[in-house]
Amino acid sequence: MKIRTHISMSLDGFVTDANGLPVWDYTSFDGTGHGYPEFMANIGAIAMGGTSFRQGLEGWLTGWPYGERPVFVLTSRALPAEAPATVVAVGSAEELIARLGAADFEGDVQLLGGPQAIASVTAAGGLDELGVVVLPVVLGSGIPLFEGEAIAFSQERWAASQDATDQAHVRPMYTLLRQEAYPDGSMHLVYAPPG
Amino acid sequence: MKIRTHISMSLDGFVTDANGLPVWDYTSFDGTGHGYPEFMANIGAIAMGGTSFRQGLEGWLTGWPYGERPVFVLTSRALPAEAPATVVAVGSAEELIARLGAADFEGDVQLLGGPQAIASVTAAGGLDELGVVVLPVVLGSGIPLFEGEAIAFSQERWAASQDATDQAHVRPMYTLLRQEAYPDGSMHLVYAPPG
Repeated sequence: MKIRTHISMSLDGFVTDANGLPVWDYTSFDGTGHGYPEFMANIGAIAMGGTSFRQGLEGWLTGWPYGERPVFVLTSRALPAEAPATVVAVGSAEELIARLGAADFEGDVQLLGGPQAIASVTAAGGLDELGVVVLPVVLGSGIPLFEGEAIAFSQERWAASQDATDQAHVRPMYTLLRQEAYPDGSMHLVYAPPG
Repeated sequence: MKIRTHISMSLDGFVTDANGLPVWDYTSFDGTGHGYPEFMANIGAIAMGGTSFRQGLEGWLTGWPYGERPVFVLTSRALPAEAPATVVAVGSAEELIARLGAADFEGDVQLLGGPQAIASVTAAGGLDELGVVVLPVVLGSGIPLFEGEAIAFSQERWAASQDATDQAHVRPMYTLLRQEAYPDGSMHLVYAPPG
């Protein structure tokens, strides 16, 4: 069992636009390309954050997309009453990872998102594959896949870093497992997180 | 003559760390991989922003890396007195594009950076190839390649966007021209900007 993502990101790093609309709505993606059917073919369970679940639920109730597969929602709140019986709330990434390991299903786990859920599962050491489809579009605003701090250049800070004698420019590297370019210019990158 | 970038970016979109140190210092890059020698082989002129020039100048003066090639610096300020005679200041992206078109050199132009210079040349319609090497590292902070606005999810904003009947989820798409994976897990993506 592997916990895997298949998430689309704009070239400038956003998974949604400023309204929360997934970035794939800006492309030709209709659920049949970008390696998505191949990815889903071996998915036996779904995990997602509470925000993603509550955002998606209304639409999903008109045609529940996950069949009998268990769906784990990372949330500190109670699930909406209309959630199907296959949906389970878990309180932490650690609990999510443990529950997934103990659950009765075949295949891998789709970690749907959002970014907070992916970050917390990654930090807890549970993410096996970070699969990202980089779409050839620049959005300019939205929800970033990676929460980061943008900094402007500072000559002083840079000079100080150059003077430092003990610079440790080391970060744990991801491992690029595979990659594929699609006809629409999207680029599928699949990484194993460090450690 | 094409204006081209070959710039490294972390997986989370930063071209430098928080000190302004280029992200390639976090990798094994030593100037001989990542397609860089092949890229530079046909470069006849260099263009960069004023911040990049002033940041790099001290180091470059100990071994000027550009030979006799003309170097155009996009800046509203006077050049430092120690700048070599091959360095020319230009005041706008439009002027830069015009000067490059009229200059006497063979081959393409390396648009070195930084992000502001790339953005302004792109906005002025002058960028022919956006070449980005995506390094398999997450930095968490630094200077982003694309200036963007990070937004948190809002149920209200999302609901409003779903209710809208005239959604125009269209952005000009980049064209993925070519891509190459390198042994260290870096991924070279080369795009033509829209339009």
